[in-house]
Amino acid sequence: CKVHKICVLPGDGIGPEIMEVATKALTVAGGKEGETFEYKQCLIGGAAIDATGKPLPEETLEVAKQSNAVLLAAIGGYKWDTLPSAQRPERGLLAIRAGLNAFANLRPAIVPRQLADSSPLKRELVEGVDILIVRELVGGIYFGQPRGFGKNEKGERIGYNTDVYSEPEVERIARVAFEAARKRGKRLCSVEKSNVLEVSQLWKEVVIRVGAEYPDVELSHMYIDNAAMQLLRNPKYFDVIVTGNIFGDILSDEASMLAGSLGLLPSASISGSGPGIYEPVHGSAPDIAGKDLANPLAMVLSAAMMCRYDLAIPKVADRLEAAVNAVLDAGLRTADIYKAGTPNTRLVKCSEMGAELMKHL
Amino acid sequence: CKVHKICVLPGDGIGPEIMEVATKALTVAGGKEGETFEYKQCLIGGAAIDATGKPLPEETLEVAKQSNAVLLAAIGGYKWDTLPSAQRPERGLLAIRAGLNAFANLRPAIVPRQLADSSPLKRELVEGVDILIVRELVGGIYFGQPRGFGKNEKGERIGYNTDVYSEPEVERIARVAFEAARKRGKRLCSVEKSNVLEVSQLWKEVVIRVGAEYPDVELSHMYIDNAAMQLLRNPKYFDVIVTGNIFGDILSDEASMLAGSLGLLPSASISGSGPGIYEPVHGSAPDIAGKDLANPLAMVLSAAMMCRYDLAIPKVADRLEAAVNAVLDAGLRTADIYKAGTPNTRLVKCSEMGAELMKHL
Ligand SMILES: CC(C)[C@H](C(=O)O)[C@@H](O)C(=O)O
Ligand SMILES: CC(C)[C@H](C(=O)O)[C@@H](O)C(=O)O
Repeated sequence: CKVHKICVLPGDGIGPEIMEVATKALTVAGGKEGETFEYKQCLIGGAAIDATGKPLPEETLEVAKQSNAVLLAAIGGYKWDTLPSAQRPERGLLAIRAGLNAFANLRPAIVPRQLADSSPLKRELVEGVDILIVRELVGGIYFGQPRGFGKNEKGERIGYNTDVYSEPEVERIARVAFEAARKRGKRLCSVEKSNVLEVSQLWKEVVIRVGAEYPDVELSHMYIDNAAMQLLRNPKYFDVIVTGNIFGDILSDEASMLAGSLGLLPSASISGSGPGIYEPVHGSAPDIAGKDLANPLAMVLSAAMMCRYDLAIPKVADRLEAAVNAVLDAGLRTADIYKAGTPNTRLVKCSEMGAELMKHL
Repeated sequence: CKVHKICVLPGDGIGPEIMEVATKALTVAGGKEGETFEYKQCLIGGAAIDATGKPLPEETLEVAKQSNAVLLAAIGGYKWDTLPSAQRPERGLLAIRAGLNAFANLRPAIVPRQLADSSPLKRELVEGVDILIVRELVGGIYFGQPRGFGKNEKGERIGYNTDVYSEPEVERIARVAFEAARKRGKRLCSVEKSNVLEVSQLWKEVVIRVGAEYPDVELSHMYIDNAAMQLLRNPKYFDVIVTGNIFGDILSDEASMLAGSLGLLPSASISGSGPGIYEPVHGSAPDIAGKDLANPLAMVLSAAMMCRYDLAIPKVADRLEAAVNAVLDAGLRTADIYKAGTPNTRLVKCSEMGAELMKHL
């Protein structure tokens, strides 16, 4: 048992509300296992822009680096949508990912038993789906140079970006994915567009090479367009998916809709060496901010992922996850996951969901 | 009435079987309207590699350029999968698109009434879905320079591609999309990733500018990750979608799964000046090639799109589409769209589907 230093970034919109529930739950769950947390709250996103002019103040990155892990709620809102893109809240997100070298984004796409009926897909297709998407997060077209605006040889104005991966970049993300697959269903699907792109050909080549070290994991390859299709046709086919930054952005959002709602989906962005970033998949929902309508469960499950990965206190993670299961089993639903007419369910506010959660901890 | 010169590219796998049905149907439907077709058959894809060593022989491109339109069935197969990627069948496809400057790929995602139950999505979500995806087809990361393999400043091997659009490239595809929207539901959604990519910022800026000429069309903007999600959450939200080459590749394949099967989905790739390319969305299905099991209907519907767009003989298109509807209403189903136990349906082979189609022409 030791004191875990957590950098807490509530961010914008519903961020502060859900973060309050998650840190409280974490403190209680940790307490039962003799674990203590020291929270340092910092600014990021729109809140940071308002206070300091920057979406990621140096101080925030400093505190993050000196912590054991980062809990991040949500970023952005209408208010900052008209700023030039280089100064927008999202830049804070990209900057902290890069600043912490959080290169592996783990996004489980799980359809919770209690909500299988809210999926847009037919129940028999999604029941039991349990996919882990491993997305490379600090490379590819998001960060590739050169980028910008210019002119082509005809003198026409152009915008351009570079999608680029190096062998070591692919190697390290492939290892994370193979290791994860080894602990799960032992099947890894690498998604790229190697029939068209050189960056994907390098990707595929390196993944195959790393795969030789994991003979117990079955490796397959799929083009991104086909993957976008198979995720609907037969989602249970997938165990772990590994892919680059932009394809991972698209696929993980698509996969999250299998669950019908983003309200229960956590994510981890880990670096392997320093602190990782744990955040819910959903956004800052500015329209319902401050109204006690938000769903805090994805934030709580993100804290659970943090306990499992960076803090290596899986028993605390188990407690948090069990409590989330218990409130769902008890029929409690925030507005985003409530479906009028479903028997044995009850619409609750964010604070009530939080209070009930504590009872089950 | 005149003679329409059609360049016919059966390609690989099931290509020849479905092409035979489509050209026969076209001849018969055209005959009723006094239209005549002159077919010139050429090599492309694996068949061309086997015969000439090249996936797109010069002669094929020459004939295509001198025709009024190109009918293409399908390309590729296991046999050529181990060739270096620069020599694979798919290269023939990319080369003919570029060679004909077929910059606008139109892919309807329609859920046919008769098959609404085969969608992986719940019936109430997909019934009545009618989306047109307009994908830019000869630019973006598919063709951007520089591309290739090299070393970064640390001496590590890299693979890289450039995603680039010029103002005129975006302008012309935006115009195609606005014109299409004007003739339909008058709503256009432009999909990009302008919160991260400069190429997307230019895209969005130009689309907005062109939009000023179409005040009757309601323009909206969506990030690609969100679009991949909304396509599942609420597909009926969409009327026309316009997007770049790689995002269009992904989204149109995802959207095609709304229909549950690719077996009925045609596509058009048009240049505005020269001949366009008309092809089914599905692949060459090498596993069932030559077995009389293929579904020829998407190929027939592609011929119908050709009549509507390049040949401007909409009455022939109407006849072909009506015949497809009639065979579906009559309950005929090839294996790919047959669901055992569905009342009033019957499993048929490709040739029988073709023969029945002729009866309805
Ligand atoms: C906000 C945006 C920059 C971000 C991304 O594209 O990575 C988001 O979509 C995500 O997936 O976390
Ligand atoms: C075969 C491949 C190169 C092609 C593409 O990516 O454009 C295909 O997926 C398509 O959508 O027509």
